[in-house]
Amino acid sequence: MRESELLAHIYERSAGLGEHVLVGPGDDCAVVRLGDSGPLALLTTDQLVEGRHYDPASTSLDLIARKAVARSISDIAGMGGRPTCALAAATLNAKFTQADELFDAMARWALRWSCPLVGGDIAISDGPTVLTTTVVGAPHEDRGAVLRSAAKPGDLICVTGSLGGSLASGRHLTFEPRIAEGVALCDVLGDRLTAMIDLSDGLGRDAGRVAKASSVRIMLESSQLPCADGADWRGALQDGEDYELCFAVRGDAPASAAGTPVTVVGVVQEGDGCVVRTPDGDLLDASQLGWDHHT
Amino acid sequence: MRESELLAHIYERSAGLGEHVLVGPGDDCAVVRLGDSGPLALLTTDQLVEGRHYDPASTSLDLIARKAVARSISDIAGMGGRPTCALAAATLNAKFTQADELFDAMARWALRWSCPLVGGDIAISDGPTVLTTTVVGAPHEDRGAVLRSAAKPGDLICVTGSLGGSLASGRHLTFEPRIAEGVALCDVLGDRLTAMIDLSDGLGRDAGRVAKASSVRIMLESSQLPCADGADWRGALQDGEDYELCFAVRGDAPASAAGTPVTVVGVVQEGDGCVVRTPDGDLLDASQLGWDHHT
Repeated sequence: MRESELLAHIYERSAGLGEHVLVGPGDDCAVVRLGDSGPLALLTTDQLVEGRHYDPASTSLDLIARKAVARSISDIAGMGGRPTCALAAATLNAKFTQADELFDAMARWALRWSCPLVGGDIAISDGPTVLTTTVVGAPHEDRGAVLRSAAKPGDLICVTGSLGGSLASGRHLTFEPRIAEGVALCDVLGDRLTAMIDLSDGLGRDAGRVAKASSVRIMLESSQLPCADGADWRGALQDGEDYELCFAVRGDAPASAAGTPVTVVGVVQEGDGCVVRTPDGDLLDASQLGWDHHT
Repeated sequence: MRESELLAHIYERSAGLGEHVLVGPGDDCAVVRLGDSGPLALLTTDQLVEGRHYDPASTSLDLIARKAVARSISDIAGMGGRPTCALAAATLNAKFTQADELFDAMARWALRWSCPLVGGDIAISDGPTVLTTTVVGAPHEDRGAVLRSAAKPGDLICVTGSLGGSLASGRHLTFEPRIAEGVALCDVLGDRLTAMIDLSDGLGRDAGRVAKASSVRIMLESSQLPCADGADWRGALQDGEDYELCFAVRGDAPASAAGTPVTVVGVVQEGDGCVVRTPDGDLLDASQLGWDHHT
């Protein structure tokens, strides 16, 4: 069974969680009200598995730690929020001797993104190293949390930065979570920013999630995709691990956000699904183009 | 290296985390202020590893899910707080076919303790099943979070319920997190409740943590330990996985908390370490008696 199918089952279970749970499983983060009149918190948890999300032979401890933290922070950015703090749990092989260095590095990277590592757990297993990072964040004060589910026909679909080839280039280990960009989009666009997601599984698959959550169709243009060096439009659609932001905007799109270029890559239409117009003018189902690798 | 030594390194890293982090790694939970004037949140993360924390051959999926959730909720109880919500991450073997049932069961148990499961992640590995549960909680409104670090000479050391033989009896799979008891102790004792911890690694080791955090000596009396059926005083001190509360109280101790018996098992003195007076009148270092199994 694929991870995405397993997660779909978690996502279906949002109902009945109580009035404090504004958004349950299924978006980049949960949105929970803490206390009866307290603030909203964003909550997300993510795992980094040795051999699956990084190659232990070629990846430094520092970059492993960095990715474990950055991936979860990217989920906060995907809602336009800012990270507040993080907890990290590590399942380590008994032969692994660098636990202290690993946690030091995670703590350092977390602080770099203003997200102090406030708790941790270590367990020993005979399996691969697994790092589970949970991040608490705060939604944008004025705009609130930007969900996947409110894109409307007529909106433009945009992405930050460039897409494709992240694994081949090593960018999946060194990407900068788009916190500042998400906040800037909230600042500038307000309610015109109708939906957002961070791109972990490829634009095709992740835009498909926005389409599904918003009950709309998304039409992407292969000719407009901002391809990273060495990537073609297919790579930009399906390679995954870009950790850029994809968002829907009502009205004009900004040219940049917090200094990062923004590119219009498609439009929202009535209907369902996510399709891409190829250079030949064919329409492909874009939501099938991407990693089974989830958020 | 033992898990407790690895964790000690995490615990040393509480400094420099910023003004919003009131308690960093090293207590049952972190205590973090959300926003500049927002409420305090309790945060804890814990892992349950197949073959280490449960026997997959003899443990039902429902009890595995229960323990994964209950252990983290017990950390919230250890501070006198109430759980708010939980996130669960699972690393599953590719051959594991019951992911949906597992998450359903975790969601059900979490709701049972008023702690909706709001987010999840699944990854596939070739190692053992690992379930990482993060719980957000709220400290007691009046008393605030009860730390390990404020026990004072003259305080009595008490425990809820009975101790020992939890693994042998299967109680480690069916224990009830002492949320109501922790809240009741806060209600009734207020600031006279000077320190508290949930007992995961055995009274000897965990009381030793209170002694160390509070810079005091704790003297336990073997003759006063409330031994569970089939356990002797050594078992009560060292078997671990009791998930009862151990607390220090200034003045009189209550006879019960939320209907659960409370037993005075020792006193706080000037000095350091945690010792137990054996039936023969010898003094043993109690903090060496216990699981290396941590919180």
